[in-house]
Amino acid sequence: MDRRSFLKNSALGGTAAAATTLAAPAYAQGNRTLTLVTTWGRGLAGVHDAAQRAADTITAMSGGSLTIDLKAAGELVGAFEVFDAVTSGQADMYHGADYYFVNQHPGYAYFTSVPFGMTAQELSNWYYHGEGQAMHDELGSIFGLKSFLAGNTGAQAGGWFSKEIASPDDFQGLKFRMPGLGGQALGRMGASVQNLPGAEVYQALASGAIDGTEWIGPWADEKAGFQEITKFYYTAGMHEPGAALSLATNLDVWESLSPAHQKIIEIASGEAHQWNLAQFMSNNGSALQRLQAGGVQVLEFPDSVWDAMGVAAAETMDQYAGDDIYDAIRASYNASMAASSGWIQQSEGVYRAQRDRVMG
Amino acid sequence: MDRRSFLKNSALGGTAAAATTLAAPAYAQGNRTLTLVTTWGRGLAGVHDAAQRAADTITAMSGGSLTIDLKAAGELVGAFEVFDAVTSGQADMYHGADYYFVNQHPGYAYFTSVPFGMTAQELSNWYYHGEGQAMHDELGSIFGLKSFLAGNTGAQAGGWFSKEIASPDDFQGLKFRMPGLGGQALGRMGASVQNLPGAEVYQALASGAIDGTEWIGPWADEKAGFQEITKFYYTAGMHEPGAALSLATNLDVWESLSPAHQKIIEIASGEAHQWNLAQFMSNNGSALQRLQAGGVQVLEFPDSVWDAMGVAAAETMDQYAGDDIYDAIRASYNASMAASSGWIQQSEGVYRAQRDRVMG
Repeated sequence: MDRRSFLKNSALGGTAAAATTLAAPAYAQGNRTLTLVTTWGRGLAGVHDAAQRAADTITAMSGGSLTIDLKAAGELVGAFEVFDAVTSGQADMYHGADYYFVNQHPGYAYFTSVPFGMTAQELSNWYYHGEGQAMHDELGSIFGLKSFLAGNTGAQAGGWFSKEIASPDDFQGLKFRMPGLGGQALGRMGASVQNLPGAEVYQALASGAIDGTEWIGPWADEKAGFQEITKFYYTAGMHEPGAALSLATNLDVWESLSPAHQKIIEIASGEAHQWNLAQFMSNNGSALQRLQAGGVQVLEFPDSVWDAMGVAAAETMDQYAGDDIYDAIRASYNASMAASSGWIQQSEGVYRAQRDRVMG
Repeated sequence: MDRRSFLKNSALGGTAAAATTLAAPAYAQGNRTLTLVTTWGRGLAGVHDAAQRAADTITAMSGGSLTIDLKAAGELVGAFEVFDAVTSGQADMYHGADYYFVNQHPGYAYFTSVPFGMTAQELSNWYYHGEGQAMHDELGSIFGLKSFLAGNTGAQAGGWFSKEIASPDDFQGLKFRMPGLGGQALGRMGASVQNLPGAEVYQALASGAIDGTEWIGPWADEKAGFQEITKFYYTAGMHEPGAALSLATNLDVWESLSPAHQKIIEIASGEAHQWNLAQFMSNNGSALQRLQAGGVQVLEFPDSVWDAMGVAAAETMDQYAGDDIYDAIRASYNASMAASSGWIQQSEGVYRAQRDRVMG
C-alpha cells in the first residue's frame, strides 16, 4: 500500500520525532494539552456534542493533567482534512465519522456504518466483545492512529426528498447527499451522489445544488433546518443503521501517554458512544412530532425500493473484495451480526411487539 | 419516612464522622482504596464481570490513586446485605441490581427494570438525557448513596419451566424465582414467588425448592447450568426488558472524593453499562444455539399469558401509588418511554424488518 510507505518515510516519521521531543518534557511537568480537531461545525447537534463530551470527561478525569483543546471544523483544519492533520501530526486527535475516509481505506466504512449493516447495539457487540476493536487497531497501524468508537447516532433516517419515492426509478439522476458506502450504493441505483460535510448541506439543499439529503435523524435534521426546504421525510433507511463516530489519536502521541491517560481516553470514548446514542434516541421522538406538526410528510420506502437497495448495497460491498484487510473486516462483521441479531429479535423484539400489543 | 430520620440520627451520622476522620489523610497521600461489595458470586457470568470492569477501569484511570477492592457476595457480606453495608459505612460501594432493594424503597425497581417497562436503550435515554439520574440521586439522598448505572443484561429471558405454559392458569401455585416488581406481578398471577440471589438459584432448582426460575439470558443461564435440570425455556418475558445494574457509593465517601475521582467513577460506571450490555448481547445468540442443540425447547408465551401479565403488572405498579417519590419516578419513566419508543420502531424497527426480509 502506497500510503503505508509514504507514512513510514516522511510525514509520520517526522511527527514521531517531534512528538518525542515535545511530549516528554510536557508530560514530566504533569500537565499536557492535546489538540482535537473534528469533522463537525461547532455546536452541530449531537455530533459536536459527542466530541465535546469526550473532551470534557478526559480533561475532568485527568484532574487537568490531560487537557483536550477542541477545534471544530474550520477552526484549525477543514472537516475532511482531520485525517491528514492527525496522521501528519498537525493535530493530536480527531473526532469524526470514519466512513468519510473510505478513500484512505474502504475498511473504515465498517467503523461508522455500512448499508444493510449493523444496528448500534450489534456494532457494540462486535466492537467491544468481538474482533471490532482489534480490526480498528489494524487499520490504525497502517496510518498511525489509535481509534475508539466515541459516539453513535443510532439508525439514521432515510432522508429528505423533494418528491415522494414510489419506485427505484425515482433515484435516476437524483442529486443526493450521502457519504460512505451507502452513498456508493445509491449511486449504483442511478443517483448523482455527493459527500458534503454537515456544515455545507443546508446551503447545498437551499441553492438546489442537491435535490435531497440524508443527515442523521429528526432531532439533528430539525436543527439543521431541512424542513424549511423539503417536506418528504423517510424515517428508515438502508445506509446507516447505527452510525458510529470515532476518536482517533496520532499513534506516536498515544504511545507517549501514560497508561492512566490511555485508559482515560479509552473509557471516555466508550462512555461518549453510549451517552451520544442515548442523546439521539431521547430527542428524536419529540422532534419528529414537531416536524409532522409543521407539515412534514413522514413516509416509508416501498418494498421495491428496499429490494433495489439490497442489490446495490451487495454490489457496493463486493467491489472492494480482494483487499485482505477489507475482506477480513467484512467477514468478521457479517459473522458477528448474524450471531447476535437473532437473540435480540427473540427476546427484545418479541417483548416490544407484545408490549405494544398489550399496553397499546 | 422512618428510614430517613433513622439515617440522619444514627448510623449515617456516625459514618459521616468516620469518613471525614479517616478519608482526609488517606487522600492527602494521593492514594486511597475503596471496598466494593457486590450481590454476585465471584465469577458469576456477566454480572460479576460488570462490577469487575468498573473496578478495574476506575483503578487504571486513576493511575493507582484510587484502588477499588472488590469483595464478591459472601466475601465480606452476603448478597442482599450490601445495601445496609454501604449505607452504614461498613463498605464504601456496592454493585448490584437495585430492585433487590424495593423493600427499602419501591422506586429502586425503576433503576433495574420493571414489568412491561423500558428496554436497555430506552432506559439509557431516560437515565442520561431525561430525569433518570436526578431521580436516582433523589433516592440516594434518602439513604446516603450516590448511584450510577454500571451494567445491563438487556432483555431477559422469560425463564426455565418444568412444563410448557399453555395458559395463565399454569402459574397457579408455581414455585418460581423472580425478584423485583416482576416477581410481584407473577405472584398476582398465582405463583409462589421467591427472591433468591443468583448464587443460590441452581441449588434451589435442583432440590425442587422451586419449580422454575428466570435468571438472565442464554449465556448466563447456560453457565448457571439450568439446562441440566429443566428443558422448557421461554426467551422473551415481561419482567425485565432491560435490567440495569448499579454502582452505589456511600454519600459521605463520595463527597470526600476529589472532582477527578468522582468523574472517574461516573464515567467508568457509564462505560461498564454499555460494555456489559454488549457482553450479554454478543454471547446470547451462540449460547441459545448450544442450549437448543442440547435438547432445550425454546418457546414463546401465548398471547393469553402476555395479557394476564399485563393486568398483573399494572396492578403491581399501582400498589405503591401515593408515595410522592415513587409517583414522580413512575410518571417520568413512563413519559420518557412513550416519547422515545416510537422513533426507535419507526427507524431501527422498520430497518430490521426490511433487512431480515431483503437479506434473508
